[in-house]
Amino acid sequence: MSKIVLGQNQYGKAEVRLVKITRDTKRHEIEDVTVTSQLRGDLDAVHTEGDNAHVVATDTQKNTVYAFARDGVGAIESFAMRLGKHFTGEFEWITGGRWEIEQYSWARIPVDGEGHDHSFVRSSDERRNTVVTVDGDRTWIVSGLSNMVVLKSTGSEFRGYPKDRYTTLQETSDRILATSVSARWRYLTTDVDFDKTFENVRAIMLEAFATTHSLALQQSLFQMGSAVLEAHPEIAEVKFSMPNKHHFLVDLEPFGLDNPGEVFFAADRPYGLIEATVEREDAPDAGRAWDSVPGFC
Amino acid sequence: MSKIVLGQNQYGKAEVRLVKITRDTKRHEIEDVTVTSQLRGDLDAVHTEGDNAHVVATDTQKNTVYAFARDGVGAIESFAMRLGKHFTGEFEWITGGRWEIEQYSWARIPVDGEGHDHSFVRSSDERRNTVVTVDGDRTWIVSGLSNMVVLKSTGSEFRGYPKDRYTTLQETSDRILATSVSARWRYLTTDVDFDKTFENVRAIMLEAFATTHSLALQQSLFQMGSAVLEAHPEIAEVKFSMPNKHHFLVDLEPFGLDNPGEVFFAADRPYGLIEATVEREDAPDAGRAWDSVPGFC
Amino acid sequence: MSKIVLGQNQYGKAEVRLVKITRDTKRHEIEDVTVTSQLRGDLDAVHTEGDNAHVVATDTQKNTVYAFARDGVGAIESFAMRLGKHFTGEFEWITGGRWEIEQYSWARIPVDGEGHDHSFVRSSDERRNTVVTVDGDRTWIVSGLSNMVVLKSTGSEFRGYPKDRYTTLQETSDRILATSVSARWRYLTTDVDFDKTFENVRAIMLEAFATTHSLALQQSLFQMGSAVLEAHPEIAEVKFSMPNKHHFLVDLEPFGLDNPGEVFFAADRPYGLIEATVEREDAPDAGRAWDSVPGFC
Amino acid sequence: MSKIVLGQNQYGKAEVRLVKITRDTKRHEIEDVTVTSQLRGDLDAVHTEGDNAHVVATDTQKNTVYAFARDGVGAIESFAMRLGKHFTGEFEWITGGRWEIEQYSWARIPVDGEGHDHSFVRSSDERRNTVVTVDGDRTWIVSGLSNMVVLKSTGSEFRGYPKDRYTTLQETSDRILATSVSARWRYLTTDVDFDKTFENVRAIMLEAFATTHSLALQQSLFQMGSAVLEAHPEIAEVKFSMPNKHHFLVDLEPFGLDNPGEVFFAADRPYGLIEATVEREDAPDAGRAWDSVPGFC
Repeated sequence: MSKIVLGQNQYGKAEVRLVKITRDTKRHEIEDVTVTSQLRGDLDAVHTEGDNAHVVATDTQKNTVYAFARDGVGAIESFAMRLGKHFTGEFEWITGGRWEIEQYSWARIPVDGEGHDHSFVRSSDERRNTVVTVDGDRTWIVSGLSNMVVLKSTGSEFRGYPKDRYTTLQETSDRILATSVSARWRYLTTDVDFDKTFENVRAIMLEAFATTHSLALQQSLFQMGSAVLEAHPEIAEVKFSMPNKHHFLVDLEPFGLDNPGEVFFAADRPYGLIEATVEREDAPDAGRAWDSVPGFC
Repeated sequence: MSKIVLGQNQYGKAEVRLVKITRDTKRHEIEDVTVTSQLRGDLDAVHTEGDNAHVVATDTQKNTVYAFARDGVGAIESFAMRLGKHFTGEFEWITGGRWEIEQYSWARIPVDGEGHDHSFVRSSDERRNTVVTVDGDRTWIVSGLSNMVVLKSTGSEFRGYPKDRYTTLQETSDRILATSVSARWRYLTTDVDFDKTFENVRAIMLEAFATTHSLALQQSLFQMGSAVLEAHPEIAEVKFSMPNKHHFLVDLEPFGLDNPGEVFFAADRPYGLIEATVEREDAPDAGRAWDSVPGFC
Repeated sequence: MSKIVLGQNQYGKAEVRLVKITRDTKRHEIEDVTVTSQLRGDLDAVHTEGDNAHVVATDTQKNTVYAFARDGVGAIESFAMRLGKHFTGEFEWITGGRWEIEQYSWARIPVDGEGHDHSFVRSSDERRNTVVTVDGDRTWIVSGLSNMVVLKSTGSEFRGYPKDRYTTLQETSDRILATSVSARWRYLTTDVDFDKTFENVRAIMLEAFATTHSLALQQSLFQMGSAVLEAHPEIAEVKFSMPNKHHFLVDLEPFGLDNPGEVFFAADRPYGLIEATVEREDAPDAGRAWDSVPGFC
Repeated sequence: MSKIVLGQNQYGKAEVRLVKITRDTKRHEIEDVTVTSQLRGDLDAVHTEGDNAHVVATDTQKNTVYAFARDGVGAIESFAMRLGKHFTGEFEWITGGRWEIEQYSWARIPVDGEGHDHSFVRSSDERRNTVVTVDGDRTWIVSGLSNMVVLKSTGSEFRGYPKDRYTTLQETSDRILATSVSARWRYLTTDVDFDKTFENVRAIMLEAFATTHSLALQQSLFQMGSAVLEAHPEIAEVKFSMPNKHHFLVDLEPFGLDNPGEVFFAADRPYGLIEATVEREDAPDAGRAWDSVPGFC
């Protein structure tokens, strides 16, 4: 029988919930992130013999996240890189890893028309994220957003698709188009103003979604990705995963009513699922950038 | 042996997902609600004999929701009352019921600095809701909000509590106070500008949370409720359910670092749970208003 | 303006996750429970003035749960009563409260045909629960189960319901009947073999669901409740909340296929929602037993 | 500027909920699956021009799932392959795709000591799954299970790990080891008795988890994978993703109590996350087998 061996592996602490308050002045700042740290390297012995000599405890990884936060978090990409540099620098047998961070945003509570100094309200369930992958001397940064729920009440068609014996869907030249955008983009460099770029990428995606007269959700996706790449030469590619959240026009005819695109049933499941990469033709190879980035084609 | 009989009961269709687009002009409006309709009345026979003669099908209730939406939804309280009047008026054996509606809000996608005509982005996971209860000639309206997540990074203490043999908690004069507000308030009348009142109640709660120097979450709660009742004579009482979402200061001393209220671990469970009613002393009896309003003391 | 006062209130620690291993012998036992403790009493001052002198810290409540578990958990009803007696006995201003416990079950992992001594696998997501309410000298016990998902593939009809202008549903004499049972029953006494009774009540409910030829889900519900009350004189009433989880027969005719009750689409939302109490006609008043029991009519 | 092009992409219908009843005899059989179908091929035009001529509608994919189920589902691997063959055979521009199926299991409700003919109870929230990937002439089958929650109350240590300035964790020679197993294994062939193999793989994993005296969760993982590969030459590799669900011994000393491994706090987050592949050294290349298998290193 063939020999049984250890293949790819990684381990760490997942979903470390970190809230950082910066209180240098009376006007506090809040950073709310969830950090996952995973290490790779020479880790055979723990798997095959239970020898922990190379296992930087996941508890230690958690402590390190909190200790590093004492100096502030900043752009999540920078914080993830700090962690990556630390672990691969400190332990010779740790040759790489991945550091994933999700960020929630908060707004100041308005009091007398102004944002309060130290009171905040969660602004959305949309989340910004990043996955920083280190392998030896190389570092890749894939940043993104998730749960950006958008809807167009018109300006969307779906026609001209092939019909076979299992096709019952009717063509439509006016439907609701709704999705929850998950997007991840790979940076070509680590020298980026990440916060500013994130805001701009998000705005571009929203605007492209809004202004594209959509013949298919795939077309909207490609427009969104192209607009980002045109504006941001430091981005190599964008991957999208977009559920087509179906809104079915309710048949009101049995009740003597018309329904000219007004009353819809928003279905849960099943849903369409559109996934694609928009990329530069000449982009350098992605290497390990997309290894264990969850849920992308 | 004692006779076995049917007690309180109700039935209906739950979580009817309804999206209504109003497209009278190029500038569309969106209403996104989830409706639960439940009927009460002379329903013994279906339970004891399986006789459906009095069972207005839950499918019919769903159809009615969609048909009524053809004329628009409007304030969710008004829509729920329309449904209540219909079902109790149409079927003589249906003497009451409850109609619960949750509403998601959407914002227009900004394009060139202006909100787009027909493209929207989900603004938050916070939800407005109402439960309208009808019993014979009486109607009660309990409206509310859920999932309003707020946090104060200072201005919160917890001291002076009793100590017994199981007490290990240290007193603190500066902590993070964070909660996800669920609030429900009972209207004294059905003649209310519900949309305007909702916005105002929400703003008052946020402001009271922000500006109260909090000695206990209970105190913040009471201030929030009192401020609402002072401003809104048409409201009889407010019930709150507020988890105390603990943020623990991380001990960084083992790493040679101080932590003056900067780095926190946001815990999931367990959490404190603070529930109370703030009410007018002379408020008329609540009757069945709070029957089957989920999760309130 | 009318005076604003504090109404009903309670507070405590929610969802204390407790796993108790009993290791008196090599054959370990596991108890896996989630405990919520909430106190009621003279708690005005903390709300109106932020005075914590009467606030037994929720952290103290959590500690007490863990300390009490040192002697074992046992029947969750008994453990909840122990907690209730402690808090109302220890602090004179605490006159009552509620203690809610949910329990997960585990099975021994089979090794060579026998259950392992100290290795377990989670058996199901079904949960046993209890809410013990104390008010002065009185104690009420409401026990139950949730998430018991059952399905009949035949033996269910739905016919004879009234038709109005909004009715489109077709009658059927053979459908799938599926639900996720939430049931809670009130004990007439605290002197019960709770573990044995729970197992028996659960078995009776399952058997009644299975053997009732169902003309309506309401009828199944009533049969299930009646069978429990007939067998258990120590139970005063049973409340059920049962979603009617619709399974729609897929129309395969467009594809040249028949579908005699074989292929179904299991829908998420909306769903029917059937809620009712089955009770003894002469049962003593429920008092505060059902106060803040979540989600019941 | 570099040219912007379409990269990897796929689309389809996700989470088609299918319940199949086989009623050839009075003793019904139930199959409860959730199917996701995604197609790959020449799909440039829909992305770049909104031309749907090659877009087999996701609605058509859904219909096909239901139509194929008319003949029965059987092993989910076989059903997925049937779908794959159909779509790649029927449409010349569809050159591949992925078909993912999750399966829930049901048990017969016991009545008078025997399983009922047509009444069932959901047995667990554990799920069996498969991802079948087709690319031209090649087919890969990756099968697995998720949400298998296991716990050892002793027989687990964690010692001998490196200590740095961020290490505070104490070594232990007796702890609770608990995880929720997600495992996926790649078959070397499509000619397998999938149902029988699944049951056997699951039993082997459980037994290896139970009987391994664990020095690290990684060691348990490797033992589980090795045992599977030793018994199943038709399997090339097994990938695991296992959260280390921490159970912290509660410090009862402040309350005058010892705690010899009896009372634990089961934490939610953060958790350890252990991921690894156990493989045959001489296994043929995995090709596209693991493309878009969610959440694996």
